[in-house]
Amino acid sequence: MEIITTVKNMQTLSGKLHKNRYIGFVPTMGFLHRGHLSLVDRARSMSDIVVVSIFVNPKQFGPSEDIKTYPRDFEHDRRLLEEVECDILFYPDVGDFYPQGYSTNVEVEGFDTTLCGARRHGHMRGVATVCMKLFNIVRPQLAVFGEKDYQQVIMIKKMVSDTNLDIEIVTSPTVREDDGLAVSSRNIYLNNRERKDAAVLYQALLFGKKLIEEGENDAYKVVKAIQNMIEKKTTARIEYIEVVDSQNLKLVERIEGPVLLALAVYFGRTRLIDSIVVIPERFQRR
Amino acid sequence: MEIITTVKNMQTLSGKLHKNRYIGFVPTMGFLHRGHLSLVDRARSMSDIVVVSIFVNPKQFGPSEDIKTYPRDFEHDRRLLEEVECDILFYPDVGDFYPQGYSTNVEVEGFDTTLCGARRHGHMRGVATVCMKLFNIVRPQLAVFGEKDYQQVIMIKKMVSDTNLDIEIVTSPTVREDDGLAVSSRNIYLNNRERKDAAVLYQALLFGKKLIEEGENDAYKVVKAIQNMIEKKTTARIEYIEVVDSQNLKLVERIEGPVLLALAVYFGRTRLIDSIVVIPERFQRR
Repeated sequence: MEIITTVKNMQTLSGKLHKNRYIGFVPTMGFLHRGHLSLVDRARSMSDIVVVSIFVNPKQFGPSEDIKTYPRDFEHDRRLLEEVECDILFYPDVGDFYPQGYSTNVEVEGFDTTLCGARRHGHMRGVATVCMKLFNIVRPQLAVFGEKDYQQVIMIKKMVSDTNLDIEIVTSPTVREDDGLAVSSRNIYLNNRERKDAAVLYQALLFGKKLIEEGENDAYKVVKAIQNMIEKKTTARIEYIEVVDSQNLKLVERIEGPVLLALAVYFGRTRLIDSIVVIPERFQRR
Repeated sequence: MEIITTVKNMQTLSGKLHKNRYIGFVPTMGFLHRGHLSLVDRARSMSDIVVVSIFVNPKQFGPSEDIKTYPRDFEHDRRLLEEVECDILFYPDVGDFYPQGYSTNVEVEGFDTTLCGARRHGHMRGVATVCMKLFNIVRPQLAVFGEKDYQQVIMIKKMVSDTNLDIEIVTSPTVREDDGLAVSSRNIYLNNRERKDAAVLYQALLFGKKLIEEGENDAYKVVKAIQNMIEKKTTARIEYIEVVDSQNLKLVERIEGPVLLALAVYFGRTRLIDSIVVIPERFQRR
């Protein structure tokens, strides 16, 4: 595996490679886990060359957020990536990636009114901007994103389509622990009690799914049912539980088509997100 | 000359061409004149393939601005481009370029506080966005812009550098009529009297340049001198006259390095812009 630490060197290499090789790209913030590795596998199966980036992007953290304490372990990441036969690891530093005086932002309208976009000011813009830059530097034909960050995936697809980037965006299902908890770099912050309680998230989402599949079409009632389950866990503090259209992420009151059940919940000081897509049975039949 | 009218066809062609041909690109809003043709010549001399786009970009016009009356003459443009041996004319329509639901914007901070950026709300963002899209569709290695739209050129260079686009931005000097008036598509709107009066713009800029070269370093006095000259013309109505740093376009009070003298002046209902770079003699000597 080749490790590239400057934007310039990455761009020189990708400028050559992308002419006759199909580059599959997995952007990450490092502290890799099985979820990331499943994305690398996916990229591997669809490309000639797999590039993984590790870059903790300051632009997608709010001023009060956890960038300084965001977990990092480069040596561990490097070993994992070698095991899964990643070809190129792009590992730039912040000052090279956003030089002094950096001032360009990419914004996809309509992503700051629901889900994480409504709570994390500037987060979605930060994600769009870093992806645009990474795409221009790595020049992949394909990029793989995890469905766990569902809103992010929908936004990146929209940005790529709107700005005519010639990149196929592929998604890969959320990877879960045995008890259903979505695998996340942030899970290491959970103490034993919080870790145990956090399993409720997926259980509650599955319960909401069941309600919809059994005919419930009132989004408020579904949210309430999920909320009641989560609130039984004493370490849980709900940030949001929302039912949105799974395509455009707009809030839904009556469930009449495919929806995303999505939530963000704190366990202690650790914010976790999860979501599932639900397609009502009566909709499937049509 | 090949004429391509859809984004998809242009992108298919450029996807092949850019792998082994050096593509020079000149984005325009059509109604071509000698200024545009000088840009095409410049691109021609530096590239294998010259692509010119004609697209009147709605995103760079404000709600009260002149998009509907912006002059158009496709047949004339086509003939001119054939004469200068343009290889590919990209001529998309608005609905194809910005499909229903389009929602991505590119913004370069700091360009909405001086010059045209401060007066035309959303203009600079519209220019950045259309250029990003055009660059992704045409995939040029080089793009040529006229120095007449000086603020635009500086912004595009910043955007390209910030977002790691692998495109060389080349500039070409403002082309002028015999009396010094900068050639512009909007000049056809001037009646005889206005056309005659409009020659004052370049004369006034040259006068300001002379003052600076003779030692004047108070930007206010230079602006006043330019203003006095222009106000003698009864059809002129000044929008702005500004002295800014020629690199970062920030307003300058004391002239201590290279500056841009820039102005926007209405003659009747027609808004004209012009500018020149001035390097004070004492600065040249260093």
